[in-house]
Amino acid sequence: MSDVSAVKAALKSQVIETPSWGYGNSGTRFKVFAQPGVPRDPFEKLADASQVHAHTGVAPKVSLHIPWDRVEDYAALTRYAGDLGLRIGAINSNVFQDDDFKLGSVTHPDPKVRRKATDHLLECVDIMDATGSPDLKLWFSDGTNYPGQDDIAGRQDRLAEALAEVYERLGDDQRMLLEYKLFEPAFYTTDVPDWGTSYAHCLKLGPKAQVVVDTGHHAPGTNIEFIVAFLLREGKLGAFDFNSRFYADDDLMAGAADPFQLFRIMHEVVKNGGLEAGTNVNFMLDQCHNIEAKIPAVIRSVTNVQEATAKALLIDAEALSEAQRSGDVLASNGVLMDAFNTDVRPLLAEVREELGLARDPFAAYLASGNQERIAADRVGGEQAGWGA
Amino acid sequence: MSDVSAVKAALKSQVIETPSWGYGNSGTRFKVFAQPGVPRDPFEKLADASQVHAHTGVAPKVSLHIPWDRVEDYAALTRYAGDLGLRIGAINSNVFQDDDFKLGSVTHPDPKVRRKATDHLLECVDIMDATGSPDLKLWFSDGTNYPGQDDIAGRQDRLAEALAEVYERLGDDQRMLLEYKLFEPAFYTTDVPDWGTSYAHCLKLGPKAQVVVDTGHHAPGTNIEFIVAFLLREGKLGAFDFNSRFYADDDLMAGAADPFQLFRIMHEVVKNGGLEAGTNVNFMLDQCHNIEAKIPAVIRSVTNVQEATAKALLIDAEALSEAQRSGDVLASNGVLMDAFNTDVRPLLAEVREELGLARDPFAAYLASGNQERIAADRVGGEQAGWGA
Amino acid sequence: MSDVSAVKAALKSQVIETPSWGYGNSGTRFKVFAQPGVPRDPFEKLADASQVHAHTGVAPKVSLHIPWDRVEDYAALTRYAGDLGLRIGAINSNVFQDDDFKLGSVTHPDPKVRRKATDHLLECVDIMDATGSPDLKLWFSDGTNYPGQDDIAGRQDRLAEALAEVYERLGDDQRMLLEYKLFEPAFYTTDVPDWGTSYAHCLKLGPKAQVVVDTGHHAPGTNIEFIVAFLLREGKLGAFDFNSRFYADDDLMAGAADPFQLFRIMHEVVKNGGLEAGTNVNFMLDQCHNIEAKIPAVIRSVTNVQEATAKALLIDAEALSEAQRSGDVLASNGVLMDAFNTDVRPLLAEVREELGLARDPFAAYLASGNQERIAADRVGGEQAGWGA
Amino acid sequence: MSDVSAVKAALKSQVIETPSWGYGNSGTRFKVFAQPGVPRDPFEKLADASQVHAHTGVAPKVSLHIPWDRVEDYAALTRYAGDLGLRIGAINSNVFQDDDFKLGSVTHPDPKVRRKATDHLLECVDIMDATGSPDLKLWFSDGTNYPGQDDIAGRQDRLAEALAEVYERLGDDQRMLLEYKLFEPAFYTTDVPDWGTSYAHCLKLGPKAQVVVDTGHHAPGTNIEFIVAFLLREGKLGAFDFNSRFYADDDLMAGAADPFQLFRIMHEVVKNGGLEAGTNVNFMLDQCHNIEAKIPAVIRSVTNVQEATAKALLIDAEALSEAQRSGDVLASNGVLMDAFNTDVRPLLAEVREELGLARDPFAAYLASGNQERIAADRVGGEQAGWGA
Repeated sequence: MSDVSAVKAALKSQVIETPSWGYGNSGTRFKVFAQPGVPRDPFEKLADASQVHAHTGVAPKVSLHIPWDRVEDYAALTRYAGDLGLRIGAINSNVFQDDDFKLGSVTHPDPKVRRKATDHLLECVDIMDATGSPDLKLWFSDGTNYPGQDDIAGRQDRLAEALAEVYERLGDDQRMLLEYKLFEPAFYTTDVPDWGTSYAHCLKLGPKAQVVVDTGHHAPGTNIEFIVAFLLREGKLGAFDFNSRFYADDDLMAGAADPFQLFRIMHEVVKNGGLEAGTNVNFMLDQCHNIEAKIPAVIRSVTNVQEATAKALLIDAEALSEAQRSGDVLASNGVLMDAFNTDVRPLLAEVREELGLARDPFAAYLASGNQERIAADRVGGEQAGWGA
Repeated sequence: MSDVSAVKAALKSQVIETPSWGYGNSGTRFKVFAQPGVPRDPFEKLADASQVHAHTGVAPKVSLHIPWDRVEDYAALTRYAGDLGLRIGAINSNVFQDDDFKLGSVTHPDPKVRRKATDHLLECVDIMDATGSPDLKLWFSDGTNYPGQDDIAGRQDRLAEALAEVYERLGDDQRMLLEYKLFEPAFYTTDVPDWGTSYAHCLKLGPKAQVVVDTGHHAPGTNIEFIVAFLLREGKLGAFDFNSRFYADDDLMAGAADPFQLFRIMHEVVKNGGLEAGTNVNFMLDQCHNIEAKIPAVIRSVTNVQEATAKALLIDAEALSEAQRSGDVLASNGVLMDAFNTDVRPLLAEVREELGLARDPFAAYLASGNQERIAADRVGGEQAGWGA
Repeated sequence: MSDVSAVKAALKSQVIETPSWGYGNSGTRFKVFAQPGVPRDPFEKLADASQVHAHTGVAPKVSLHIPWDRVEDYAALTRYAGDLGLRIGAINSNVFQDDDFKLGSVTHPDPKVRRKATDHLLECVDIMDATGSPDLKLWFSDGTNYPGQDDIAGRQDRLAEALAEVYERLGDDQRMLLEYKLFEPAFYTTDVPDWGTSYAHCLKLGPKAQVVVDTGHHAPGTNIEFIVAFLLREGKLGAFDFNSRFYADDDLMAGAADPFQLFRIMHEVVKNGGLEAGTNVNFMLDQCHNIEAKIPAVIRSVTNVQEATAKALLIDAEALSEAQRSGDVLASNGVLMDAFNTDVRPLLAEVREELGLARDPFAAYLASGNQERIAADRVGGEQAGWGA
Repeated sequence: MSDVSAVKAALKSQVIETPSWGYGNSGTRFKVFAQPGVPRDPFEKLADASQVHAHTGVAPKVSLHIPWDRVEDYAALTRYAGDLGLRIGAINSNVFQDDDFKLGSVTHPDPKVRRKATDHLLECVDIMDATGSPDLKLWFSDGTNYPGQDDIAGRQDRLAEALAEVYERLGDDQRMLLEYKLFEPAFYTTDVPDWGTSYAHCLKLGPKAQVVVDTGHHAPGTNIEFIVAFLLREGKLGAFDFNSRFYADDDLMAGAADPFQLFRIMHEVVKNGGLEAGTNVNFMLDQCHNIEAKIPAVIRSVTNVQEATAKALLIDAEALSEAQRSGDVLASNGVLMDAFNTDVRPLLAEVREELGLARDPFAAYLASGNQERIAADRVGGEQAGWGA
């Protein structure tokens, strides 16, 4: 895409959805370190998300996590979001923290537990209705820790049954996004461990079911951009959960561990139409800011995704295609690397300026005084985290 | 399966197919070490395979690899197999060793190369007709080494087109087995890198297309038995390529690196009906005996698969199911481990005795003098290997 | 070791140390599921450990974790252990849960935090003095999450300085055991990530410093038994932290995920003198029983280690050595596999009978009523876990 | 290093050594695809290397591989190198392609084979004397494929003995560089599998023995820059073998698979004095250009290393150190990323211009007509490859 104005237009129209839980405390099984100024409720999380949007201009949507973001009055929460210039994104279900779910939720051997889990998923669709959320995002921690612990194929039957019931409940403009994950918290089998499993279920469910690619949920060596290209070709890529990792599901800031991989992923997105309006790929973040300040970390993650997108848009598609057709390995690789090696920060600064924003959102946020303000204001109460 | 006679019957009816190339020389990119007595042509490979069958009683089928096993007269080869008590198993295509295939075969950017590759696949179906082989096994080394080298989704289009043409050519009792592999020889993308990709293509092709699980072709940490259970549940598990690995596609003897994994795989096979006659799962070996004597190595691999199968058959299915239903993690794991910890060598010795064979096929083969005989006889000529 | 009585004697003399925290609650970052009957204090943990020893006869030592097991009166705790037939094993330091340690402990950029961390280590030596513990076990979660976050080499300097100070404080019969871990909770660098780093520090410190091999702390594909053999050859293997894993630091029961690996490890231990009295290798468990009952899980882990040890002891060392010398790959591998394929449960049952114990400690424990007793008795109070 | 002229001076003084075998044919175990114009002998390999140096100005040294580069008259070869503006770099031993080495070389169970292997290493020192090479580079494929195949610790004894003998033979200005590799061609144990093993042997040998870090020889997830920092701190980093990989030892062009990793490695090199004259780290390439044109691939690899070095030199060391000291995670990471995100191609173009070279060595080489020339000239004879 050699036309700079087209590149800029694409960058202005990309929407990056941020997760409410990214503003709360998180950690590892060893320790959750609290931070000053962390929100105490969903309203404060939205306020933080609005800071990210105010400085980047591309983050108007916020994912909620139920029950962490359960409120009495979803209409009020939705109005509050609107007042902040935000709208509610995906509703994320949580069927992994109730004591009943120790051995699984929708795949649990006990039908009573499965009923409870499915009911929670249906409740999430109710919340979609109430908030205008278009996406039900399903991640199941279901699995087993020991060989023999449960019946692998039997659990697939139970999973399929629950998904079908929830799929039926979806409205016309609602879709189901099914996430996969190699392992953790289950350590032997996971019931949706890879894209193939998610894809197979989505295929049977129908067009409203699509796959979520969380960039931290793969086995070492997995080529994620291949999966992205494959799913786009099949019309089955629903969303990304962006984050980055060196080892397992590290949940570091997107683009922090392997910016070249993020660029390659965005290249496949651009190449296969994933940035076009009708394709409807949701670019979400899903991260943990365990030791770094949270709002600035989300801002950097957003700009990292933008930089990867900008580089992907700058690839000379014609030259690439010509080199590929002629079988010139070094030339085709060179076209890609030329774009990657370009410093796109000035281009993005211009894009922001044209949107009436500061050229450097990270610096602008730090200079805004917001971080000090929330640290001073949000005293008392219980800080939000994965448990609340 | 607590009934010992039923266990024995199942063990007697299991067929393990051995690969013609397992009797030839193999190695790494660093060196192929030749061994004395290695066959010089497909007839001698069949002779070696017949030794394995003669001593184990469960290996009457031999996979061929074209062009390595190309002969003038396939009827003669098939008759020779029959004389040895063997029959021809899967026909394995080879579209990775012609100079034209440097950048791919059926996914190559150049349509002339794709035509050549597809023609080779069609030739393999001709050989199936000529030999009575029921299975066309397809492994594609196709892929790329560098980001940008070729169009990932475009290569899927080309792959789908070639597979469809070959699928059309299959006879009523012939099927297509599509193998996947994470990497090697391609080092950036591989066009069929995982079971999901193979499954998606097979699904579109139709019921005669099924997935091959090569136990050495996964990313670290992949739970292979999950894939086995999933594919059996979908009726899409066509075959195994058994071998074992500590690192990548090491192609060591089946059961040598992780006998517990092999047992878990066979548990899923047994549990999900994969040993039953109608299911038609082909239990093939696909290995390289780089430094060990080849015929004895194949014999040990066969007995390793048998031992894993025997242990899987000994699992107390009722107790397992009961423990799973009640959510007793330690009890259900314990049922599985009881079977694994059982020494099944005496049981298998009995099975062999009942078949009129020696109790220990490995020792019996070594005592037979065959190894010395072929070393003395097979002098001159060119030893078979991956290149010939 | 063909002499059965010698094998039995070795099995009777092996000591397996269990961790106090293995009896408490544990989980993942997603959820800690509580269990009935979990101990509320270090005394109750010792009571649970005494159950394991009572039924297995080989687990008289218990590792403590400070501050989780901090008590007013260590003499009283030590006496209580003695009354239960136990003694205090390794003292495990904890410099990862104080808010000051968010960016590191002994490697923290701030010298005040390093002082605090080192003081904690010195306190642990005091507790060794008070309890008669011979081993200071050091695991540092220290590391960084992002490239550039801190100075990798500078952190090594700080680590070396702290270790030297603590080493100086050790008494004549006390040693320092330095554990390594690839990652978690740090996700970019870990300051002691591999055996090489631990070994290099121990070498500089002196003979009282030795390496701990936690079987769950390696990169995928790492050959752990190689490390064990190497460290024994160097006199630098201080201890094991046994557990098992399919993916990362899963902390499953020892021997549950890969019993063949555990056997290979124990083969190197036996082969290289690690079971002999003077060698002083500490066989510790370090596990999390997130979803299974804890005391029975520890018992099964102990018996799994025993079974692997028994099989290793049964290897025909002379035949193995002869086959190795002659370069007979299949024969030498066969000698090893013969031992592995042996069912050693009857042998271990005899060993237990000779020790005056029940033949099956797992079943005996379940029949003892203890599990029901502690569930009924231990009501109220706060259950012990990683945080307390 | 904010002073641009200092950065340029450092870039001009960095020497990148290229491997003679990188100009020959290579491939995988599946197929070696020949290329037109590939050299037939060591003299032609030097001619190719001189092209790389002529266009980049930083590649005056060439590694030889014995016996692949064995010649009658090493003085003549050395003179020829000199005439081309080159000098001989490391001498690489090869003890993996003789039939005797099937089960090992210096660690083989048979002392006669060990003697033969050690003699080859001593011959390599003779060649160092004859060519002025300062570095003996040792990579051992030695290892085993099956558990029990040989005695792990015994092989360490044999390795130590051979290394000591060769070390004794080194002249005052010669050193031994000991490479490690996780696996391949050995698939169970490798005798020098990791940096710890290499380091431990080098430490015992003395100051002339140092470790080689091949960037493709690690387990998945290994933090290579940690190892680099650690070895530089210990004065034990002798050399790099640069290449890149997505999976195993893929041997792709340096910087092609993970340019951010290469940058992080070069940051540790710069930070820990590895670019300074006295440190004497040898920056070698060790790659396979299986499908791409070889000379241009080496040129791109050289410029990739230069770009990573330039970015590392541009890091604001003072700002980084200040942010690290203050524990500001996002700021310190930001300083690093600022340098990485900089487009350094214009700076390197200036450096080349100041050296009297073309700004773009890749384009200049392609325009030079050399590739067409060698393809036309080098007809007949046997192309060089790993086997010759």
